[in-house]
Amino acid sequence: MAQIAPAALSSLQSGLRGWVSGATAILFAIFVRYNRETDAALWHGGNHSNADNEFYFRYPSFQDVHAMVFVGFGFLMVFLHRYGFSSVGFTFLLAAFALQWSTLVQGFLHSFHGSHIHVSVESMVSADFCAGALLISFGAVLGKTGPAQLLLMALLEVLLFGTNEFVLLDLLGARDAGGSMTIHTFGAYFGLVVSRVLYRPWLEKSKHRQSSTYHSDLFAMIGTIFLWIFWPSFNSAPTSLGDTQHRTALNTYYSLAASTLSTFALSALVGRDGRLDMVHVQNAALAGGVVVGTSGEMMLTPFGALAAGFLAGTVSTLGYKFLTPILESKFKVQDTCGVHNLHGMPGVLGALLGVLVTALTTHQAYGDGLQAVFPLIAEGQRGATSQAVYQLLGLCVTMAFALVGGSLVGFLLRLPFLDSPPDSQCYEDQMCWEVPGECTDEAQVPLSVEEPDTRA
Amino acid sequence: MAQIAPAALSSLQSGLRGWVSGATAILFAIFVRYNRETDAALWHGGNHSNADNEFYFRYPSFQDVHAMVFVGFGFLMVFLHRYGFSSVGFTFLLAAFALQWSTLVQGFLHSFHGSHIHVSVESMVSADFCAGALLISFGAVLGKTGPAQLLLMALLEVLLFGTNEFVLLDLLGARDAGGSMTIHTFGAYFGLVVSRVLYRPWLEKSKHRQSSTYHSDLFAMIGTIFLWIFWPSFNSAPTSLGDTQHRTALNTYYSLAASTLSTFALSALVGRDGRLDMVHVQNAALAGGVVVGTSGEMMLTPFGALAAGFLAGTVSTLGYKFLTPILESKFKVQDTCGVHNLHGMPGVLGALLGVLVTALTTHQAYGDGLQAVFPLIAEGQRGATSQAVYQLLGLCVTMAFALVGGSLVGFLLRLPFLDSPPDSQCYEDQMCWEVPGECTDEAQVPLSVEEPDTRA
Amino acid sequence: MAQIAPAALSSLQSGLRGWVSGATAILFAIFVRYNRETDAALWHGGNHSNADNEFYFRYPSFQDVHAMVFVGFGFLMVFLHRYGFSSVGFTFLLAAFALQWSTLVQGFLHSFHGSHIHVSVESMVSADFCAGALLISFGAVLGKTGPAQLLLMALLEVLLFGTNEFVLLDLLGARDAGGSMTIHTFGAYFGLVVSRVLYRPWLEKSKHRQSSTYHSDLFAMIGTIFLWIFWPSFNSAPTSLGDTQHRTALNTYYSLAASTLSTFALSALVGRDGRLDMVHVQNAALAGGVVVGTSGEMMLTPFGALAAGFLAGTVSTLGYKFLTPILESKFKVQDTCGVHNLHGMPGVLGALLGVLVTALTTHQAYGDGLQAVFPLIAEGQRGATSQAVYQLLGLCVTMAFALVGGSLVGFLLRLPFLDSPPDSQCYEDQMCWEVPGECTDEAQVPLSVEEPDTRA
Repeated sequence: MAQIAPAALSSLQSGLRGWVSGATAILFAIFVRYNRETDAALWHGGNHSNADNEFYFRYPSFQDVHAMVFVGFGFLMVFLHRYGFSSVGFTFLLAAFALQWSTLVQGFLHSFHGSHIHVSVESMVSADFCAGALLISFGAVLGKTGPAQLLLMALLEVLLFGTNEFVLLDLLGARDAGGSMTIHTFGAYFGLVVSRVLYRPWLEKSKHRQSSTYHSDLFAMIGTIFLWIFWPSFNSAPTSLGDTQHRTALNTYYSLAASTLSTFALSALVGRDGRLDMVHVQNAALAGGVVVGTSGEMMLTPFGALAAGFLAGTVSTLGYKFLTPILESKFKVQDTCGVHNLHGMPGVLGALLGVLVTALTTHQAYGDGLQAVFPLIAEGQRGATSQAVYQLLGLCVTMAFALVGGSLVGFLLRLPFLDSPPDSQCYEDQMCWEVPGECTDEAQVPLSVEEPDTRA
Repeated sequence: MAQIAPAALSSLQSGLRGWVSGATAILFAIFVRYNRETDAALWHGGNHSNADNEFYFRYPSFQDVHAMVFVGFGFLMVFLHRYGFSSVGFTFLLAAFALQWSTLVQGFLHSFHGSHIHVSVESMVSADFCAGALLISFGAVLGKTGPAQLLLMALLEVLLFGTNEFVLLDLLGARDAGGSMTIHTFGAYFGLVVSRVLYRPWLEKSKHRQSSTYHSDLFAMIGTIFLWIFWPSFNSAPTSLGDTQHRTALNTYYSLAASTLSTFALSALVGRDGRLDMVHVQNAALAGGVVVGTSGEMMLTPFGALAAGFLAGTVSTLGYKFLTPILESKFKVQDTCGVHNLHGMPGVLGALLGVLVTALTTHQAYGDGLQAVFPLIAEGQRGATSQAVYQLLGLCVTMAFALVGGSLVGFLLRLPFLDSPPDSQCYEDQMCWEVPGECTDEAQVPLSVEEPDTRA
Repeated sequence: MAQIAPAALSSLQSGLRGWVSGATAILFAIFVRYNRETDAALWHGGNHSNADNEFYFRYPSFQDVHAMVFVGFGFLMVFLHRYGFSSVGFTFLLAAFALQWSTLVQGFLHSFHGSHIHVSVESMVSADFCAGALLISFGAVLGKTGPAQLLLMALLEVLLFGTNEFVLLDLLGARDAGGSMTIHTFGAYFGLVVSRVLYRPWLEKSKHRQSSTYHSDLFAMIGTIFLWIFWPSFNSAPTSLGDTQHRTALNTYYSLAASTLSTFALSALVGRDGRLDMVHVQNAALAGGVVVGTSGEMMLTPFGALAAGFLAGTVSTLGYKFLTPILESKFKVQDTCGVHNLHGMPGVLGALLGVLVTALTTHQAYGDGLQAVFPLIAEGQRGATSQAVYQLLGLCVTMAFALVGGSLVGFLLRLPFLDSPPDSQCYEDQMCWEVPGECTDEAQVPLSVEEPDTRA
C-alpha cells in the first residue's frame, strides 16, 4: 500500500483546489456578466412588469432550493458515526465548488450571447440543481474517497451533467422540471458506476465504522425533514408561473406523503420483530419527491401522485432491505448511502412515469395550459406519442452519459497521486479533519461546581 | 398483562397503515381534483391577475408553515433521551398521514363542488394546520402509545378537527386565523383527555427515561427556534392579503418576543438557585405565538401584542413549574410535553383575548379594512358585541369537541389489540425501532491512525 | 473572589429583566403604532399597488433574515461542549430583547412622525439586523459573562448601534445595505473592546472547557449552513426592488462560494499534517457574506464578488490560525468565537471594498439604476469620489463608535453586582442552567428489553 506523506497530499490537494478556484475566477472575469434583470444599466431601460412578477416567485423559491441542497443533503449523510465532519464539510465544499463551476458550464451551454455568459438568480437555481446531482453521486462513494478525488469527480461530473441536461432539454426537447432524469437518475448511476470501478474487496476492515449512533441518526433526520419540506419548491422552481407551479408543488407534496406512509408500513413489515429501521425512514420516505420529478408539472392528477409516491416508497424500502446487499456481494457496487434505492430506481420510475403521462396528453386535458408544459405539442411540432418517445430517449441518453461518464471518471479517480484512503481508514474523519476527543471525564460526570448557598 | 407477539403487532399495524393509505388513495381517485388555479385547462381560461398576486404570497408562506410543523414539532419533542427516533419519526408519519386524510375531510366540508373536492396550495396550508393540532395531542401522549394507537387517534382526530373547524368558521362565523381555538385549544385538551383516559398509575417504572440529556435538549432547541421564527408566517398564512397579513405577522412577532423575555425572567425566579430550566425555554417562550392566534389579525396594537405575550409566557412557565405536577398527582393527567402549559392555557387565553378585542371593534378603528377581518360586521349582519359572543361560543364548542371527542377516542385506544406499550417500556425507542449502540470503544478514544510523517 | 449568593443574583437579574421588559412595554404603549401598510384603517384608504408589490418580496425575505439570525447565530456558537444551553439560550434571550428594544430605538430615529413610531414588517428586518450586531459582540465575550452583564450590554449596544446606523445612513448618506460597517465592523470591534476591558488573566482555569466535542461541532455546522444559505437574503433584504436585489443576492452568493473554497484550501495548507480544522470551516467559510455587505448592491461584477470572497476567506482563515493567539497573548483580547476573523477584518475589508467600488461609479455603468444605489450621485448632489470619501468616513465613525462605546460599556460591565462568573467557571452552563446528567448507564448499553418472540 503506497503511503503518500500527508504533507504531499495536502499540497497536492491544495494545488488542485487553488487551480480550480483560480481558473474559475479567471473564467468568471472573462466571461460572466450580469443579465438584463440583474444589471443596473439594463434593467431600467424598459418595461419589466412581467419579469418583475416572475422574480417575486423565483426568489424565495431559490432560497428553498438552496436550503434543500445544503441542509438536506449535508445532514442526510451525517448518519455515519465517524464521518460526520466529512459528510457535512465535503457537502459544503462540493456544493460551493459546483455552484461556481456549473454557472460557467451551464452558462456556456444556455446563456452565452455576444461572447458573454449572462447570469441571474435563475442561474443560481440551475447551479443548485447541478450541485444536487453531484451530492447524490457523493452519497454512493461516501467514506471511500479523499478530497482530491472528490474535487476531480466534481470537476468532471459538472461538465457531464451540463452536457446531458443540454442534450435532454435543448436538443431532444424532453421535459424534466424536477430532474427525475437529469438529477436523480444521472447522479445515482454516475456515482454507482464510479463506486463499482473503485470497488474495495477488503472494505470490511472499516465495517465497524459503517454504522450510525443514536445522535448521528437524529442529525440525519434533520436532512431528511429539510429535503421533505422543500421538495415541492425544488420540483416547481423551474416550471412556468401559475397553474403549472401550483400543480407541481401539489403533486410533489402528495407523492411525498404517500411514500412516507408506504415506507413506514413496509419497514415494519420487513423489519426484525416488526421494528422500524431509521435507514428506511431517513431515505425511502423521500422517494416520492424523486418519482414525480418529471411528471410533477403534468396533469398527473392527485391520485396519480399518491399512487406514484406509494410505489416509490415501496420500491425504495425493499431496495434497502434486499437489493443493496446483493448489489455489494454480486455486483461489487458498494453504495454507502443507498443512492440506488432513493435516487436510482425512483428516478428511472419517474422517467418512465413521465413517458406514460406524456403519452396520455390531450389538448382537452391541458387546454390553454399546454404551452407551458409541452410547448412543442402546443405548437403542433409533435404529437403526444412522439413527445413520449423523446422522453424515453432522454432516459436512455441519461443512462448512457451516467454509465460511460462514470466509468471514465472512476478510472481517473484511481490515479495513485489522488490519495485514496486505505481500506482500514474508510468512513473515518481523522483522515482529513482535526477531530476533538469525544468524552472528557468532565463531560461525563456532573461538574463539581462549588455548591452555591441556598436561599436561606 | 397480555403480551402480544411483536409479529402480530407488526401485521396489525401494517394492516391499519395499509388500509389507511389504501382507502385514502381510493377516495383521492374518486373525489380529488385540481382546482381552478392548479388545473392546466381551467387556469388559462380567464383573467387571473388577482389570483396570481394572491399566489405570490401564499406560496412561500405555505413552505414556512410546512417547515414549522415538520421541523418545529418534530424536533421539539426529541428532548426525551430514549425516545428521539419515535418523536421525530412518528411526527413525520402522523403529519404525512394527516396531510392526506385532512385534505379529504376538509375538502368534503369546504370545497366540495359538483361531486369533487378541488385542491390547491391553500389545501396544503389547511392540512398543515390540522397536522399541527394532531401533533399537539401527540405531545400529551408522547411515549405512552404505540403506532397503531397513534394512527387510530390521527384518523379520528382529523375528523373531529375538521368538523370543529367547520362549525366555528363556517357555521358560527367566528374568526380564528392562527387557531388559538381550532388548533391549540382543541389539540391540547383533546390530547389531555386522551392521556387522562389512558392514565397509567405505574408509570414511574419508566420514570428514569422521562428525562433529557444535554444533546437531546439541544436537538429540542432546533424545534423551538423553528417554531419561533416561522410562527409569524403560521398565524398570517390564512389571513387576507395586505395590511391584515402585515399586522398578524407583526403582532405575532412582538408577542413571541415578550413571551420569551417573561419566560426567562420567571424561569430564573422560580428555578433552584436562580437557574434557568431548559423545559421552560423550549416551550413557554413560544406561548406568545399561541396567545395571539385569534386576535393577531385584529387591531390588537403593538402594545396589546406585547402584553398578551408577556402574560402567556408567565402563565406557561408557572404552569410547567407548579401545575403539571398537580395535574398528574391530583387529576391523573400525564402530560409528557406539557401541552397544557404551551397550548392549552395560552390557547384559552388567546380565545378570550379574541373575544375582548372583537368586542372593542369599531368602524373607526378598522376603516375600509373591516371587511377583511370581520366581514359580518362590515356587512351589517352583526354588531361587535354579537360577534364577540359568537367568538366565546366558538371556544365553548371547541372545548366540547375536545373533551367529548377525546374521551371517546381515549376509550377506543384502550382496545387491547392496539398494543399499548407496557408501563416499564414507555418512552423507549426500542419498542418500535432498531436502535444502534450508542458508544463503541472506538468512538470514545482517539483512533489509532498510524501517525503520518511530519513535514520534515 | 467575592461570591454573590445565586439567589441575590437571580433577583437582580430578574429585576433587570423585569424592568427591561416593563419599561419597553410602557414605551410601546405610548409610542408605537402600526404604519400605513399595517393599519386596517389606513391601508384601504388609497391605491397601494406599489406598496403591495414591495411587500411580496419583503415578507419572505424577512423570514429568511429571521432564520439566519436565530438559527444561524444561535447554533454557530454551540461549539463549546459545556456552554451549548447558554449559547443557544442567551442568543434567544438577547435577540428577543433586541427586537423589542431596537424597534423603539430605530423607530425614534427613523420613523417618528406626529409623536408616534410607525412600525411594519420592515421594522422587523431592521430589528433583526440590530440583533445580528449584538450577537456578533456576544460571540466575543461568550462564556465569560453572566446574563445580567449581557442584558446591560444589549441595552446599551442597541442604543449605540441605532445611533451609529443613523449617523452613517441618514446623516452621512453612506451606503451599507448588508452592514459590512454597521453590523459586522461595529458588532465585532464593540465586542472585542468589551472583551479587552473584561480581560481575565487566569482564564486558563477554564481552558479545559474552551473546546468542542464531535457532536457540538456538528450542531455548530447547523448554524454555519443556515448563515450560508440565507446570507443572500440578509444582504439583499433592505435593497431596492428589482435589479439591485437580484445583484446583491447574486454577488453574495458568489462571494460565499469563493470564501468557502479558499477556506478549505488554506485550512488544509496550514493544518497539522494537512488536516482541515472545523473552526475554519464553521467560520471563515462565511467571510464572503461579510465582505460584500457594503458593495453587494453595487456593480461589483461577478468576478469582483468571487475575488472579494476569496480574499475574505483567506484573511479569515489565516486570522484564526495565526492572529487569534497573538491577540490574546500580546493584546489581551480573549475572542471566544474569533469574531475578529469572521466579522472584524472582513467587515473592514468590505467597507474598504465599498469605498473602492463607489469611487469607480460611472453614470454609464449604472444607467437608470443609479438612483436605486446612489441617489445622491444620481441627483447630482455628489460625485463618485465625494461619495467614496463619505463611505470611508462612515468606516471611521463606525470604528469610533465601536471603540469608545465598547470601552465605556466594558467598564460598566465590571460593576460587581452584575455578577460576572469566576475564572474557574467560565464556559460552563451549570452557572445559569439546570443541566441534565449526560450519560446514564442505560443510555450507554443496549436496553434489556425482554426479547420478543421471533416470528416462528
